[in-house]
Amino acid sequence: MKLINGGVCAAKDFLASGIHCGIRKNRTKRDLSLIYSKAPAHAAAVYTTNLVKGAPLTVTKNHLADGVAQAIICNSGNANTCNANGIEVAEEICSLLGREMKLDPNDIVVASTGVIGQPLDVTPIANGIPALVSALSTDGGEAAAEGIMTTDTVKKEVAVEFELGGKTCRMGGIAKGSGMIHPNMATMLVFITTDAAISAEMLQRALSTDIATTFNMVSVDGDTSTNDMVTVLANGAAGNPEITADDADFATFMKALNTITVNLCRMIAGDGEGASKLLECSVTGALDDLTARVIAKSVICSSLVKAAMFGSDANWGRILCAIGYSGATVDVNKVEVKFRSPKGEILVCENGAGVDFSEEIAKEILLEKNIDILIALGDGNGAATAWGCDLTYDYVKINGDYRT
Amino acid sequence: MKLINGGVCAAKDFLASGIHCGIRKNRTKRDLSLIYSKAPAHAAAVYTTNLVKGAPLTVTKNHLADGVAQAIICNSGNANTCNANGIEVAEEICSLLGREMKLDPNDIVVASTGVIGQPLDVTPIANGIPALVSALSTDGGEAAAEGIMTTDTVKKEVAVEFELGGKTCRMGGIAKGSGMIHPNMATMLVFITTDAAISAEMLQRALSTDIATTFNMVSVDGDTSTNDMVTVLANGAAGNPEITADDADFATFMKALNTITVNLCRMIAGDGEGASKLLECSVTGALDDLTARVIAKSVICSSLVKAAMFGSDANWGRILCAIGYSGATVDVNKVEVKFRSPKGEILVCENGAGVDFSEEIAKEILLEKNIDILIALGDGNGAATAWGCDLTYDYVKINGDYRT
Repeated sequence: MKLINGGVCAAKDFLASGIHCGIRKNRTKRDLSLIYSKAPAHAAAVYTTNLVKGAPLTVTKNHLADGVAQAIICNSGNANTCNANGIEVAEEICSLLGREMKLDPNDIVVASTGVIGQPLDVTPIANGIPALVSALSTDGGEAAAEGIMTTDTVKKEVAVEFELGGKTCRMGGIAKGSGMIHPNMATMLVFITTDAAISAEMLQRALSTDIATTFNMVSVDGDTSTNDMVTVLANGAAGNPEITADDADFATFMKALNTITVNLCRMIAGDGEGASKLLECSVTGALDDLTARVIAKSVICSSLVKAAMFGSDANWGRILCAIGYSGATVDVNKVEVKFRSPKGEILVCENGAGVDFSEEIAKEILLEKNIDILIALGDGNGAATAWGCDLTYDYVKINGDYRT
Repeated sequence: MKLINGGVCAAKDFLASGIHCGIRKNRTKRDLSLIYSKAPAHAAAVYTTNLVKGAPLTVTKNHLADGVAQAIICNSGNANTCNANGIEVAEEICSLLGREMKLDPNDIVVASTGVIGQPLDVTPIANGIPALVSALSTDGGEAAAEGIMTTDTVKKEVAVEFELGGKTCRMGGIAKGSGMIHPNMATMLVFITTDAAISAEMLQRALSTDIATTFNMVSVDGDTSTNDMVTVLANGAAGNPEITADDADFATFMKALNTITVNLCRMIAGDGEGASKLLECSVTGALDDLTARVIAKSVICSSLVKAAMFGSDANWGRILCAIGYSGATVDVNKVEVKFRSPKGEILVCENGAGVDFSEEIAKEILLEKNIDILIALGDGNGAATAWGCDLTYDYVKINGDYRT
């Protein structure tokens, strides 16, 4: 398992592109992306649990009912959500792309991200599709990663190489995150491609299992988006024997998938809206893994913890507070808290009470960009990690007037 | 039922005081408050549900086991929470006050608010108690309201006059709020006094019933504090026949209590840390009241809604989003949303989708300080109101470096 350069075009027989078609006013920003597999691929997806669901998710869910897809089209600048004609528009986008590429619209995944509740004009997309399709290439992964960005400040892509049945396989992914990030049984927009051969059933199982400890453990602002979706396409071009059961190859595949997803989680959290720091909260010694997850997520979601981290302030009392209100079963008198960064590690709380520590050293550790909050509970063997970011002036600025 | 001037000294035979004893470095800030009833009073309280509980809460709970109290002492500047010797310190404060006032320490309510996890030095409190007790007067309510403030920018007090059994009764309260405000089955610090005669049992019942729709519906930042507490003292000095059952007098008492608590809720939310606006979210037409409460609270807690309100941006899609992820059962295709302020009212969403509306008029409405978010669901007769505030640069500033 090794990390390699690239994103959605790292795996064999995947092409991608990203263009500016005119949904976004800023002409320097790409707003339409396409990912294409030369052959039909097995496909799996997970979706937001928000009752208010973006129209593209409903259309995609129908299209993936047979576990097969060949292309993914995604626009930024408008979420196509809470619009009376949202479903029609999402279906029209698939029809237009299908006609241009001679694909069955049912084999197309459609996604949208951006502002909610403003009708999505299909005209710029219709006009842009020919250029989008002509731009498809194995070098287009980066452009595709850019085309799905909203308030993201950096594009997010990652790829790995691994071996299955003596064949070299690759997997790569791109993500868009930034705000309204608090996935629950699904997530922000993530598109993953692989040339490994795997049945649609096992692909869905791999994805559904993985997200519980990855994307569902990321929070930027506690708001579960209406348009969250993760999709994986597996086209089998690597030529490995197709994975159809929970065997050693499946375990390898899961490991590759987890490498992609954990890396994307870190990128999404670290580039949370306005974020100046990536926070990684690791809980060990919980009664069970689920308890650990509840606690890790409660800490990473606390506005007060997030603001303290922005100020590089070792205010561990707020961490204890967030553990206490998490709803998890925990003996608060045994809690240990440490902060860690590339500058070192410092113990700040033991047995649920403060210890003497150097504020200067703590400050030096917390001034770094990547901060680990390490919580040891002493209640059992449950463990979990959650990813988040600090709460900054820029978060307020970005969200105080997002639409105008 | 009429609102009158005053706070905890509005009711007969209550005295109060507030001084600077030296817990806080700033000598112009009072940090120690006392409320005293000339005769022992029936007492009721509710406490935070956070598993990490401030030591003063544990001590107060013991002292109120018999339903009687005569004094409340509260310091600001230090929460006396997550300290190895917290219980001892809280008990010593009661002993010192008991000795000075010739009161049984078991009749004293003790509370603390401020930073968590730093040992509370009892010396300034011990040195301050004689001055605190000599300062007791019927004019001391305001000083007491000031002595419990932390990052609050205004003192919070309210009083009402009402009639029970032909006797004029009064009730008044003070509160401290601002940050770490997301009460759950209890709240921030609130002290209420009344000269109405009511049994300890009915007093507790009144309080426990009331908070479900008042303090539990306030959120500033989603963080449930370790030190939340609401206490009511009823000394019977008004001379009304003691309320001992769920009768008409009890209903009047409940109405008086609700007037006090709703006013304090609005004050606490409007003075949330860094807040520039008070948000009041009213949900009607829900399946039941509980559903309405879940939805109202989800909207008021959304960082994205709060930031949009800071920017006076009619971004109603974020409200739909927060309704959708609230966990409540709701038909999202029937949701109607309006914004209202002293400048007028505007419909922005109908049947779960956007309507044409004037952005200029919406902006004018949302530039006001008091904003109502009106959500009509059309699912049933459940209703609820929640109070919150906008998310501002100042919230981040205040909490980025609270301890130093």
